[in-house]
Amino acid sequence: MSEESKETRHMLAAIDERNAEQFLLCAETMHYADLAEIYESLTEEERDFFTSNIDMEQFAEVLADLPDTLIEETIERLEPAEQREILDQISDDDRVDILQDVSDDARERLLELVEPDDIEVTKSLLKYDESTAGGRMTTHFASIHGEMTVQQALESLRKESEETESFARVYVIDAKDKLCGYVRFRDLAFNLPETIISDFMRPVKRFILASADQEEAAQMVSKYDLFVLPVVNEQHRLLGIITHDDVVEILEEESTEDMEKMAGFSGEGSEETYLNTPTMIHFRRRFPWLFGLAILAIASGIVMIKFEDVLNSLFILSLFLPMVVAAGGNTGGQASTMVIRAMALGELDQDSIIRVAWKELRLGLMLGALLGTGMAIITITFVPMFYHDMPAEIGFTKFAIAVAVALAIQITSSTLVGSLLPLGARAAKIDPAVIAAPAITTIVDVSGMVIYFFVAKAILGL
Amino acid sequence: MSEESKETRHMLAAIDERNAEQFLLCAETMHYADLAEIYESLTEEERDFFTSNIDMEQFAEVLADLPDTLIEETIERLEPAEQREILDQISDDDRVDILQDVSDDARERLLELVEPDDIEVTKSLLKYDESTAGGRMTTHFASIHGEMTVQQALESLRKESEETESFARVYVIDAKDKLCGYVRFRDLAFNLPETIISDFMRPVKRFILASADQEEAAQMVSKYDLFVLPVVNEQHRLLGIITHDDVVEILEEESTEDMEKMAGFSGEGSEETYLNTPTMIHFRRRFPWLFGLAILAIASGIVMIKFEDVLNSLFILSLFLPMVVAAGGNTGGQASTMVIRAMALGELDQDSIIRVAWKELRLGLMLGALLGTGMAIITITFVPMFYHDMPAEIGFTKFAIAVAVALAIQITSSTLVGSLLPLGARAAKIDPAVIAAPAITTIVDVSGMVIYFFVAKAILGL
Repeated sequence: MSEESKETRHMLAAIDERNAEQFLLCAETMHYADLAEIYESLTEEERDFFTSNIDMEQFAEVLADLPDTLIEETIERLEPAEQREILDQISDDDRVDILQDVSDDARERLLELVEPDDIEVTKSLLKYDESTAGGRMTTHFASIHGEMTVQQALESLRKESEETESFARVYVIDAKDKLCGYVRFRDLAFNLPETIISDFMRPVKRFILASADQEEAAQMVSKYDLFVLPVVNEQHRLLGIITHDDVVEILEEESTEDMEKMAGFSGEGSEETYLNTPTMIHFRRRFPWLFGLAILAIASGIVMIKFEDVLNSLFILSLFLPMVVAAGGNTGGQASTMVIRAMALGELDQDSIIRVAWKELRLGLMLGALLGTGMAIITITFVPMFYHDMPAEIGFTKFAIAVAVALAIQITSSTLVGSLLPLGARAAKIDPAVIAAPAITTIVDVSGMVIYFFVAKAILGL
Repeated sequence: MSEESKETRHMLAAIDERNAEQFLLCAETMHYADLAEIYESLTEEERDFFTSNIDMEQFAEVLADLPDTLIEETIERLEPAEQREILDQISDDDRVDILQDVSDDARERLLELVEPDDIEVTKSLLKYDESTAGGRMTTHFASIHGEMTVQQALESLRKESEETESFARVYVIDAKDKLCGYVRFRDLAFNLPETIISDFMRPVKRFILASADQEEAAQMVSKYDLFVLPVVNEQHRLLGIITHDDVVEILEEESTEDMEKMAGFSGEGSEETYLNTPTMIHFRRRFPWLFGLAILAIASGIVMIKFEDVLNSLFILSLFLPMVVAAGGNTGGQASTMVIRAMALGELDQDSIIRVAWKELRLGLMLGALLGTGMAIITITFVPMFYHDMPAEIGFTKFAIAVAVALAIQITSSTLVGSLLPLGARAAKIDPAVIAAPAITTIVDVSGMVIYFFVAKAILGL
């Protein structure tokens, strides 16, 4: 790792001194991912220096690695001739990604610059949404025909060798591009030249429709340890492949997005690194939920006002009020995290709802009973040490029982709410990750107040 | 996908009827990942039927795909002869994984069953912890020597063809197994047979030490879009490779673990699916944090008791108390999620602490100012409609200002706490994900109470 940071330091020094010669020398040996990271951290003028000095063939790869939000302003820095070169050098799927990230105006302008022999595939890929299997796939797969001999197959592959992204799987297609099977590249290298492909090709058991969600593709690759996942259309025509690096990217994106939603952020997961995201963007993504939840939280205050007389008649109740309320938020948050993650990993379908409810109900009862008992013991042991105004008709035991019962009810109901709300959200076609910890905490805060005061009133006769 | 569930349904029917013939027929065509999922969902007697009928060669793969917690009880179901066959059939890294998952007793017993020609590599791999690059790597990589011709290289690879996991990268090593470079398999297939390997081999720029953390390996593969990551020892000897499916597994494990820790779970992320994890295990993983946080939450209650006179002299303060407290938890949770995820993706090092603090301080001030202003407006507009007991010397405007100021201070401080605590945790070698939403919420609940009552006292002169 230290070698990379040395490279990066040299590069940053070259940019700082506006030393074009040194800059090119550094860039030559660097990986596009490191260059993209450096570019992201530069000021406006430094970025101008970067783009006007770097080799366009290399910059095509850097550009494809930049976060979505930087694509348009970066490509606008370039001359039309440079834009044309970039669009020519870049792979089909990266070209389409870039075109999908820019404004409609810019897309029309850039499409005019795409070379005639690339325009058809570009336009056909543009039809697929970015988050579908079709939007993620690359069209540079290796394909041969079943009636070829091994020698013919190798010759046909050799011609496309530099363009092809992965030779891990060589797909066998028919005259209409329909997917018939696959061979491993090593099968070609280790078979006799005159062997016919269809004699030893294997069936393709797993493939995905171009219109399917990218998350489904990632789940299949992950579950079945696939090297490459072929993407087909309704007619079983092979359109492209999803490779391991796409899957890694999808998994990281989806996990980040889920975590952010679970913490109450608006909008899509940001691809930019935390520090390089402008403060205003952070602000806009965090504010709406905060404000909404704050309004909701006033409901808890209204409950407190309504039960003013209960609280005033036995103010020691305040000692455990925040605890009972917070315990509901914590257990509800745990339950929702479990369920949301299980859904993201494809473990729960709509039929599981009864099993989930039953499991969480038992869990809630167990957690509630044990925590309630623990708190009752703590109450009876410690509260009499410093509190001497307990009315005789109530007594510490009754008080402890009230706290314990309220806590147990609050925990059981919150566990159930936390596990079922995300499932309900999915049934209502809302992203379950949105109904996570912050929303659930706010909801069970209100119910916790109500439960606590009702139980206190009932058991202590206030 | 529907084809898979049909297979699964047939299989479950065969198990239900204890129909061994049908069972074997189904198993033959099924993927080990599906078989493992089915096995996980079976009862004790069904599992016995499963293990006593399935072909041991196939069961070796199923076993390697089972969650850690099921490994020991599953392998104990088998006869020693079957265990021996499994240990022989399985790949080196899976064998070591299994041995690492069982108790010390079982490990000693199983090691005796390992074939003599596998025992050395097994023992050497057992030295690496499961969560290191060395613990994750497979030793079935393709390697050749630089002085070989292409023809010699292909012949040597052909012999190992069935054992080798990935031919995407063929590594070139010297007589002492030191890593010298790599060639792509297609380079071999498309070069003349008499070409010398060292004439066209490429340098290996990225590799990892066997002792490095698995997360570091996954981050390298993800950042640099690698096919395969070579694992070396201190002497640069090539020991193994980490492939795409290891990386996918590492990423899913680490994301699940982070999410669970962020929601307050104890222990390691569970590999078992949510529904198949026994309720008692869920209970044990959730209870400790819930109990600890409940004890901490009593501190909030103590603050309330201490400020009893402030609350009693102006009970309408209760209306906004839960909101101010909860807003801190929400904004602190957002900040910590951002920072923890950025750390997990390798974006933040220890030096970034000042930049993070500065960013979150500005964000906190902006969020606090805007939310405070919003709440002040709401207070002045709506509270006078139903509350008629506001003392004249205080008035609604002063009251609204007190609420707004307390809210702004609470949000600013909570944002800062939420972002800095995870960084502090890492500096103190505590896993930052542990110091996430639930812990931060509980901490800022207490500080929120204190801030609210102090500000109310100061501004309203109570």
